[in-house]
Amino acid sequence: MYNLLKGKKGIIFGALDENSIAWKVAERAHEEGAQFVLTNAPIAMRMGQINELAKKTGSEIIPADATSMEDLTNLVEKSMEILGGKIDFVLHSIGMSVNVRKGKHYTDPSYDFTTKGWDVSAVSFHKTMNVLYNKNAMNEWGSIVALTYMAAQRVFPDYNDMADNKAYLESIARSFGYFFGRDHKVRVNTISQSPTPTTAGSGVKGFGGFLAYAEKMSPLGNATALECADYTISLFSDLTKKVTLQNLFHDGGFSNMGVSDSVMDEFMKED
Amino acid sequence: MYNLLKGKKGIIFGALDENSIAWKVAERAHEEGAQFVLTNAPIAMRMGQINELAKKTGSEIIPADATSMEDLTNLVEKSMEILGGKIDFVLHSIGMSVNVRKGKHYTDPSYDFTTKGWDVSAVSFHKTMNVLYNKNAMNEWGSIVALTYMAAQRVFPDYNDMADNKAYLESIARSFGYFFGRDHKVRVNTISQSPTPTTAGSGVKGFGGFLAYAEKMSPLGNATALECADYTISLFSDLTKKVTLQNLFHDGGFSNMGVSDSVMDEFMKED
Amino acid sequence: MYNLLKGKKGIIFGALDENSIAWKVAERAHEEGAQFVLTNAPIAMRMGQINELAKKTGSEIIPADATSMEDLTNLVEKSMEILGGKIDFVLHSIGMSVNVRKGKHYTDPSYDFTTKGWDVSAVSFHKTMNVLYNKNAMNEWGSIVALTYMAAQRVFPDYNDMADNKAYLESIARSFGYFFGRDHKVRVNTISQSPTPTTAGSGVKGFGGFLAYAEKMSPLGNATALECADYTISLFSDLTKKVTLQNLFHDGGFSNMGVSDSVMDEFMKED
Amino acid sequence: MYNLLKGKKGIIFGALDENSIAWKVAERAHEEGAQFVLTNAPIAMRMGQINELAKKTGSEIIPADATSMEDLTNLVEKSMEILGGKIDFVLHSIGMSVNVRKGKHYTDPSYDFTTKGWDVSAVSFHKTMNVLYNKNAMNEWGSIVALTYMAAQRVFPDYNDMADNKAYLESIARSFGYFFGRDHKVRVNTISQSPTPTTAGSGVKGFGGFLAYAEKMSPLGNATALECADYTISLFSDLTKKVTLQNLFHDGGFSNMGVSDSVMDEFMKED
Repeated sequence: MYNLLKGKKGIIFGALDENSIAWKVAERAHEEGAQFVLTNAPIAMRMGQINELAKKTGSEIIPADATSMEDLTNLVEKSMEILGGKIDFVLHSIGMSVNVRKGKHYTDPSYDFTTKGWDVSAVSFHKTMNVLYNKNAMNEWGSIVALTYMAAQRVFPDYNDMADNKAYLESIARSFGYFFGRDHKVRVNTISQSPTPTTAGSGVKGFGGFLAYAEKMSPLGNATALECADYTISLFSDLTKKVTLQNLFHDGGFSNMGVSDSVMDEFMKED
Repeated sequence: MYNLLKGKKGIIFGALDENSIAWKVAERAHEEGAQFVLTNAPIAMRMGQINELAKKTGSEIIPADATSMEDLTNLVEKSMEILGGKIDFVLHSIGMSVNVRKGKHYTDPSYDFTTKGWDVSAVSFHKTMNVLYNKNAMNEWGSIVALTYMAAQRVFPDYNDMADNKAYLESIARSFGYFFGRDHKVRVNTISQSPTPTTAGSGVKGFGGFLAYAEKMSPLGNATALECADYTISLFSDLTKKVTLQNLFHDGGFSNMGVSDSVMDEFMKED
Repeated sequence: MYNLLKGKKGIIFGALDENSIAWKVAERAHEEGAQFVLTNAPIAMRMGQINELAKKTGSEIIPADATSMEDLTNLVEKSMEILGGKIDFVLHSIGMSVNVRKGKHYTDPSYDFTTKGWDVSAVSFHKTMNVLYNKNAMNEWGSIVALTYMAAQRVFPDYNDMADNKAYLESIARSFGYFFGRDHKVRVNTISQSPTPTTAGSGVKGFGGFLAYAEKMSPLGNATALECADYTISLFSDLTKKVTLQNLFHDGGFSNMGVSDSVMDEFMKED
Repeated sequence: MYNLLKGKKGIIFGALDENSIAWKVAERAHEEGAQFVLTNAPIAMRMGQINELAKKTGSEIIPADATSMEDLTNLVEKSMEILGGKIDFVLHSIGMSVNVRKGKHYTDPSYDFTTKGWDVSAVSFHKTMNVLYNKNAMNEWGSIVALTYMAAQRVFPDYNDMADNKAYLESIARSFGYFFGRDHKVRVNTISQSPTPTTAGSGVKGFGGFLAYAEKMSPLGNATALECADYTISLFSDLTKKVTLQNLFHDGGFSNMGVSDSVMDEFMKED
């Protein structure tokens, strides 16, 4: 629409299906003139309709297990070949709690599941930046964004160990962002998005009720996946070159609410 | 450059001279297709070159003392007449500490100066939104931005009572932002900008040394006035519709640094 | 009970009646071996039962309008005379929004009321420290505490301009706390207390419902006035000498909750 | 000194030698009338003088690898036997980055080391609370404290992956603290302590220079290990029953400083 990403090259992780935020980012990045590679875990891709997205956006797909340095190295090398140069933007949209999937409560997890979820959801972001940084694969003033959730700061009881994983992820953004900024002029930020009815998010217990609660708490209502894609585009564009190490709430205002009139009304209904 | 503000109408406070952030915002908003009114305090305008900016951007100038509800009412009414409709974006870039100007230390101010500085620097933002809200002068999904500084969160000894004024300003953004979002779908945010060598900022004691310190602390270096204007454009655009009640650091990463290698090197030099 | 304040001398602002947090602090400080002066605005004292408290705790009362430098100067000088030396601890528990009292909505206040409320609720803290600092009236490792509320960080729609006043107050704690720490080894902090059914607090619209909401949101329930007094004692004691410039939440965990099971249950009841 | 912990029973992790914060906490807890068990990793204990501490404080020692659920279960069961009842307070003072020890840079770690360090430094806190919670081993109004560092919020380049581990640790405090508060009235907090010249801390590169920097930045100077112990006692005492889910800075004010006069002076020396 605006040519905000004209000539920019990227890698987009995590487009599973049309409900995914990463899917919307790919569509919007395409509209804004970017070229990019799509990637996802081999197993996730079999479930998704990623080929359709690739066709629509003129992209190639490179499967990669984001916990594997080998896969990530291959991904980055191939992407530079395909795109014909260094990378300008990267979206990390990966998260999965095995404890949640297997119905383990936060207070009594399987620590193997905890470790696996942490590796997939958080360390994968470090590994991705490790490869990009050490291969000097990012252009100056490039932009790296990971998606996160406010459970990193505040308690949402059903979010389980994803809260801790997101806290670790956001810390990686700051820690690695320092070196990436200092040495390569690359910015690293996280977007802390409203609860979003993606295929992945929907699995969380009581998600529907929680969506309604967040909608009523937020003065502008929940942010949609498409709105998140728009915001992500702004962070990939040259308009935000000096924004780095930040965790940016994109949530209709939820994060700075104590309580809204609307929640109090609902809360008091029966009294 | 991108037509990000095509068809949008705005009011820009605080363009004093070409070093002003507001001046850069006006230039960039013009490039992005916006129409707007420029305003400043009558006394400030005599000092500035605002007529030149108005000519360059096809804007009209409406003087207004931002502490006067009468002036602000006139400003909003006239702006809607001139622009032919409701307002889409507002920039509040106003700040002044009389105690700083008069050389009063933070620990021994004149409380009359404190009150005057608070009224000009912070309450003016409330009054501006008061008029816009009660006159129903903003279009839905409009965007209001005020400029602030990190002294609202952390101590910078020479910033004097501007620290407290900025804390109050940021609180107004949240408090009024709630009602503006709930009732008119308007977002309200503050940008917490790097120290910037504007004509106003330069008056602070030891400002040059502090600029150098901030430059070395920030992995991407200090953000310039022009970069701040770019960022402000992104917040006026439709890419950021669900960002509200936020204080957004635009500072090359300074705000999330504990210490940088570069500062430690400088700090240790003589040892 | 523990002799935590044995030999310490203090000034306690804001004991109105036995529901006041300051009242409980006075009782607890007395139990812990402190000597102190009680103070309140002349008009507030006529309404309270402060004489009873003074008798019970062996304290003298010095009326002072906390917006008056003259009254505060008299207060500090007389207190040092009465107590026989410098001050070790000060509690600032003062807050009042004229807009709330007069039923003015946040979006359409009387700015005279706004200014008056800001002066009483926030600037009074600066003035108090101004006198203490410039008269060199605090002992080294003394402790100054002001009471605040989380509306300074997050939106509580009915809290009106007290939210902005509390943000300003907390900023004063940091700004003045720097100089007080650097020059006199005195610490300055704010306690951000649960909503508390004091005589003052109860005036806020819908306060009962809000108390119930906060109770359900907080894993340990709301903190009482007496518990706040206990916490304040810990901050006056020698156990917390290096805690300064902090805003300390004393709220049963409310401040770091996104949502609790208990709130979600209530919220979903009718569905 | 005050009998603040009279009759209270505790478990103290991490007393290595007399420079350890945990060592000072044990000494102070003993002075305040507590009974407790000391624990440390079998390998760490061989290096320490923990027997001396045990004798001095009338404590028993139960070795435990804090990454082993089996060891932790044994620790909690034995502690309740020895102490004759449930636990009132727990100190978690455990942290170790294998990457730091082995000289691996943050941008190019061994991920096996990363995982090991995360398990020891952060997950150990979850495992400890898991055992305490599921065995119902804590008394109501008990208090759990873990030590952390501000690198969890802001970048300190040499802190390496401990920054991310501390972010994860602090998130665990909130996440588990919710359930522990809701179900057992137990509070969980972290203390974010000044850089402290413990035997463990001293290993970090450039630590001496950093200590000097932090000293000059903090209006009250760095907090010592003994002062941290005092603060910890206050959090174990009944004075702080409603403080939970908090990360509490104990750092002479460092965390809320942007810059101090003293750092600026040093920084500008050569210019």
